[in-house]
Amino acid sequence: MVKVKIIGAGGFGGTGMIELLMAHPEAKLVKLIDIENAGKPISAEFGHLAGLCDMVITAPDADDPNDGADVVFCATPDRVGMSIGPKYVKAGLRVIDYSGDFRFGDVETYAGYAGRIGKDPKHLSPELLPKSTYGLAEVNRERIKSATVVGNPGCFAVSCILGFMPAVKAGVVDFGSLIADAKTGVSGAGKKASATFHYPMRYDNMNAYKVAAHQHSYEVNRQLSLKAGKDINVCLITQVVPVCRGIMTTCYAKVDSGMADVAKLVKLYRDTYAGEPFVRVIGPEGSTSNAAVRGSNFCNLWVNFDKATGQMVVVSHIDNLMKGQAGNALQNMNIMFGIKETAGLMSVPQFP
Amino acid sequence: MVKVKIIGAGGFGGTGMIELLMAHPEAKLVKLIDIENAGKPISAEFGHLAGLCDMVITAPDADDPNDGADVVFCATPDRVGMSIGPKYVKAGLRVIDYSGDFRFGDVETYAGYAGRIGKDPKHLSPELLPKSTYGLAEVNRERIKSATVVGNPGCFAVSCILGFMPAVKAGVVDFGSLIADAKTGVSGAGKKASATFHYPMRYDNMNAYKVAAHQHSYEVNRQLSLKAGKDINVCLITQVVPVCRGIMTTCYAKVDSGMADVAKLVKLYRDTYAGEPFVRVIGPEGSTSNAAVRGSNFCNLWVNFDKATGQMVVVSHIDNLMKGQAGNALQNMNIMFGIKETAGLMSVPQFP
Amino acid sequence: MVKVKIIGAGGFGGTGMIELLMAHPEAKLVKLIDIENAGKPISAEFGHLAGLCDMVITAPDADDPNDGADVVFCATPDRVGMSIGPKYVKAGLRVIDYSGDFRFGDVETYAGYAGRIGKDPKHLSPELLPKSTYGLAEVNRERIKSATVVGNPGCFAVSCILGFMPAVKAGVVDFGSLIADAKTGVSGAGKKASATFHYPMRYDNMNAYKVAAHQHSYEVNRQLSLKAGKDINVCLITQVVPVCRGIMTTCYAKVDSGMADVAKLVKLYRDTYAGEPFVRVIGPEGSTSNAAVRGSNFCNLWVNFDKATGQMVVVSHIDNLMKGQAGNALQNMNIMFGIKETAGLMSVPQFP
Amino acid sequence: MVKVKIIGAGGFGGTGMIELLMAHPEAKLVKLIDIENAGKPISAEFGHLAGLCDMVITAPDADDPNDGADVVFCATPDRVGMSIGPKYVKAGLRVIDYSGDFRFGDVETYAGYAGRIGKDPKHLSPELLPKSTYGLAEVNRERIKSATVVGNPGCFAVSCILGFMPAVKAGVVDFGSLIADAKTGVSGAGKKASATFHYPMRYDNMNAYKVAAHQHSYEVNRQLSLKAGKDINVCLITQVVPVCRGIMTTCYAKVDSGMADVAKLVKLYRDTYAGEPFVRVIGPEGSTSNAAVRGSNFCNLWVNFDKATGQMVVVSHIDNLMKGQAGNALQNMNIMFGIKETAGLMSVPQFP
Repeated sequence: MVKVKIIGAGGFGGTGMIELLMAHPEAKLVKLIDIENAGKPISAEFGHLAGLCDMVITAPDADDPNDGADVVFCATPDRVGMSIGPKYVKAGLRVIDYSGDFRFGDVETYAGYAGRIGKDPKHLSPELLPKSTYGLAEVNRERIKSATVVGNPGCFAVSCILGFMPAVKAGVVDFGSLIADAKTGVSGAGKKASATFHYPMRYDNMNAYKVAAHQHSYEVNRQLSLKAGKDINVCLITQVVPVCRGIMTTCYAKVDSGMADVAKLVKLYRDTYAGEPFVRVIGPEGSTSNAAVRGSNFCNLWVNFDKATGQMVVVSHIDNLMKGQAGNALQNMNIMFGIKETAGLMSVPQFP
Repeated sequence: MVKVKIIGAGGFGGTGMIELLMAHPEAKLVKLIDIENAGKPISAEFGHLAGLCDMVITAPDADDPNDGADVVFCATPDRVGMSIGPKYVKAGLRVIDYSGDFRFGDVETYAGYAGRIGKDPKHLSPELLPKSTYGLAEVNRERIKSATVVGNPGCFAVSCILGFMPAVKAGVVDFGSLIADAKTGVSGAGKKASATFHYPMRYDNMNAYKVAAHQHSYEVNRQLSLKAGKDINVCLITQVVPVCRGIMTTCYAKVDSGMADVAKLVKLYRDTYAGEPFVRVIGPEGSTSNAAVRGSNFCNLWVNFDKATGQMVVVSHIDNLMKGQAGNALQNMNIMFGIKETAGLMSVPQFP
Repeated sequence: MVKVKIIGAGGFGGTGMIELLMAHPEAKLVKLIDIENAGKPISAEFGHLAGLCDMVITAPDADDPNDGADVVFCATPDRVGMSIGPKYVKAGLRVIDYSGDFRFGDVETYAGYAGRIGKDPKHLSPELLPKSTYGLAEVNRERIKSATVVGNPGCFAVSCILGFMPAVKAGVVDFGSLIADAKTGVSGAGKKASATFHYPMRYDNMNAYKVAAHQHSYEVNRQLSLKAGKDINVCLITQVVPVCRGIMTTCYAKVDSGMADVAKLVKLYRDTYAGEPFVRVIGPEGSTSNAAVRGSNFCNLWVNFDKATGQMVVVSHIDNLMKGQAGNALQNMNIMFGIKETAGLMSVPQFP
Repeated sequence: MVKVKIIGAGGFGGTGMIELLMAHPEAKLVKLIDIENAGKPISAEFGHLAGLCDMVITAPDADDPNDGADVVFCATPDRVGMSIGPKYVKAGLRVIDYSGDFRFGDVETYAGYAGRIGKDPKHLSPELLPKSTYGLAEVNRERIKSATVVGNPGCFAVSCILGFMPAVKAGVVDFGSLIADAKTGVSGAGKKASATFHYPMRYDNMNAYKVAAHQHSYEVNRQLSLKAGKDINVCLITQVVPVCRGIMTTCYAKVDSGMADVAKLVKLYRDTYAGEPFVRVIGPEGSTSNAAVRGSNFCNLWVNFDKATGQMVVVSHIDNLMKGQAGNALQNMNIMFGIKETAGLMSVPQFP
């Protein structure tokens, strides 16, 4: 039984992990840590947990890293995981961090990312970077197995990387033509209220934001470049729609003439993801939607090709709080601890 | 392992049961039956089930009642369960019916209900009525244990009966003053599209309907009258709000002077529901919401008292597709088969 | 041409008035005043006004009461209108205040209300109270004509008072049995973001709040008592549903035996509101919804009677930002200045 | 006073026109025609019109083309306008058709379009085509002035054409790189209920459909090709999001090196649309949203440039029922009759 702590338990990413762990056959939640509501049961704020998980929240300072846990999820903002990570690693725990802190492997690359988000470029625990890796199993499974620290990817990044990776890895598209038109549900912005996400402002509304400036493009470019063996820049445009859970990213790329055939593209995607438990490739004759992934750890990829323009069009759907966050983080934990990769992740979501 | 069939598998009530059974430790889904899409996997229509439940749908005529199943859920409209129930009972199965067919125990009472909904008053399987009972454990657990056929209650009825029952049973309110102001989510109307529930007509909209004429009032009156030992009529007003899952029923009653004290009312409710695994009583100092029950089998009852007017105000929340339908039906199955009553029903729902 | 100032122009109540005034044939907006965004055009924050109203916001201190305006709308929170009202009255303007400051006519009654909302019970401009009145034309038209200061009613109060008034005035219901079950859209809470109204918390959610403690019940009781000629307490229960604009209040009262006939009740309501331009009475054979009033100044009253329980059930619909706020305030202005009461208020709203 | 008939009055496109005409200073609605609900007031179905427009619906057969009207709007599906158009033209009326019937100018081009939508390729009133034109003022104002018949454009087409036109006309982008990623609200699908747009299926959902096969791409390609002077194919991907009103199309194109500067692009867009009353160009320092155009006839264009990839990114927002349908149709009428182009179209919409 893997013993698990969650830091930042009171955010959407933390409660999402609680929901999953309650049903996990080989993991056990041992501590909930948060800077808010210490001393109160988590269910005092999240009524849906009442009677199901009433564990009392511990303040960060009051937590003892040496109390026997195996892994800690840092469901925390940028620069928290790198501050507290070392003491947990020292105590023998493995760390899965939700922020950008451990997504980049070396201090130089991190500094570039940090600049992009307006943060101090200096990494606070550089000694952990060599033991860390990028936590997206579909591109990096082997390194996750042995990593001490895993940087769980950004939600947009998951949808983009999975949408483009087969074509990029195979080198069958014009690397200068990649566009990711991403639409996210509002839960991606987290629990904190803001004018932008006030119900009257958001219902029946939609807008683009951070045009060509979203921080997740940094890791998308990096991961795709590693697969391509050369530098790639994706034009990532992020938009908000009045959905709570879900990201739909439409991935465009000019296809090389030799692959200008939808059947070939579908085969390429199916072959690339053969054996992947959480990727479902759908051909042009099918269809899919956010409802098909909402609540689950699946990524649905609907592969299409527009003959008239030579564009591959892959519509990539994930639940931003699952494959885009807590679900993917749990998948990483399973891999790190040699548990069946799908353990705790095959519950049937509810519809409608 | 209880072997389960679902008839009407392709409706919300049927898929809701599939979702639950996939996680049930002591039940196993053996057949999905529906008049539509026979021969296709259920996941062809419900994409969220792909890879989790891809069972092929059987046509009703093609089903053999004698193939060894233990129980059949009739997630079907009025008058279907009473038509097909006898052949399953004959084959030794127990039947849990979602419609009004088996909620009334005798042909006379059924005839009254049928008239209310504009149906033929003649019951088609009167021989089953003596072996049938009303399937709401909180009022009727003992009879459910041994029943051959269970009439699963209407969603509004569950919220009203649980909201009023303690006060009515204790006889501490004016029986002539009961009002149930019920607001339902749209999923209560089922999967079939209609002008009323077309997205552009329904978003940002709300309305009352069937004012003082909803068919569920029939069973509410009957169950509360049985508890009171005298005839009770509740003024039940049903309204639709742009929520998908959920019923919030505000229950009003004039309280007798001896109980005109919120602490006494809260105690009465807590005592009445002591030991009930799915009822959570909340005092006036607390609060609750649809989010606290959405996706779960819980009924949350927020007990209040308005001194100025002498009204008890109990706000009753359920998920209409869970405690109001599939969840409650599974609770009945657990009781009927001697399984732990909460088996398969304590999964943590997702929020938000 | 009536020259109009709006204080608190940047809230929903202020922009709602701007929207209306732009189409008013006999009024002209001369100044927008707000503590936020002074010096910027109102359209910088509210993009829908760009090119239609780009008036620059004036800071409160920078406004000269003596610059020739005729009326000022205080679209401001409690205790602002009573602070700044005197200087505008002194300058010869008439004042229409959106808060509770001028709804109660005398300092004692105000003190009771202020206590209810946790405010200082001392009124800051008692000298204005004799010149003030309650601004709901359907109950108080004559006094509005000559009032210097009008207290625009609360949104819940409008829906309740219009829903009950005919029956109460005629004395045909049990005054001890009045219940108002009110459901409001989220815009009623204003523009300020809060956890409760954060999109992910509010979509697919609903809840009761301030049970039997909403401040609007104070003015409902007062106005109905004045009509009844005796003290009345209504049990007002307020609830939030995921609608942006709209209030649906279901009004219950036990009907005297002589009026226990829906045709009589409908006639009473029709007679009472004969000639009222903004009240539409609908009989039990009809139906109505929020969509029928959204965007307009109408109040729709669907009059029903439940024979089995003797309850009158009047479903009262308004747009909380129109008849519940800016629209009603403009109606008051029209009355005060001898303009046709419907001027600027008969625009056709958009649907869907 | 222009006398106006509306055929197909009971759809969203018809009622949208009613809403607009009620506030038009120089046009008068004289007849509402529809195949449904003849003999009933339009307000019987659309409650928001009660008391504002209660005109009785006339059956199509009962309408006399020679009763003195000046213009008829055919708010009807494909192939209706071309069937009934000739008799109205013969009677001296001008025709504004909402469908694809008159968008293509000659029978060959129409046949291509008709094949695309699975309709009979034979045009039914070819004699009208020389007198017809494409009704988008921003690209075709002069021809609209004198046209007898105007083909009002498709909603997606409006958003795409306005988004791309300046860059295409100026020839500063790679014509082989154009991608239009379009997200529409549900009202675009019209009033008829369907499983896809049933509230429980649509809330919290989103999906792409008709990938690279939407019929509107046909007119987008045609209009842009006319401006470019050479054949252009846009990769148009259409998606539905849970918004009622609104289209947001993100327009991508590789910019020529000489224009690889956002200031130049913004200038090009501002210059091209200088004097256009309904196009608002926003630079990269600004932002916009669906809320800024909802309810109005404006098209907002947010012009951006992604240096890293050389992509121009223009986010194009319209209200699909206004600039995408009824509003644009009324703009055409104003132009055809020499009325001020903005007449009846500058009402301030309501927010939120």
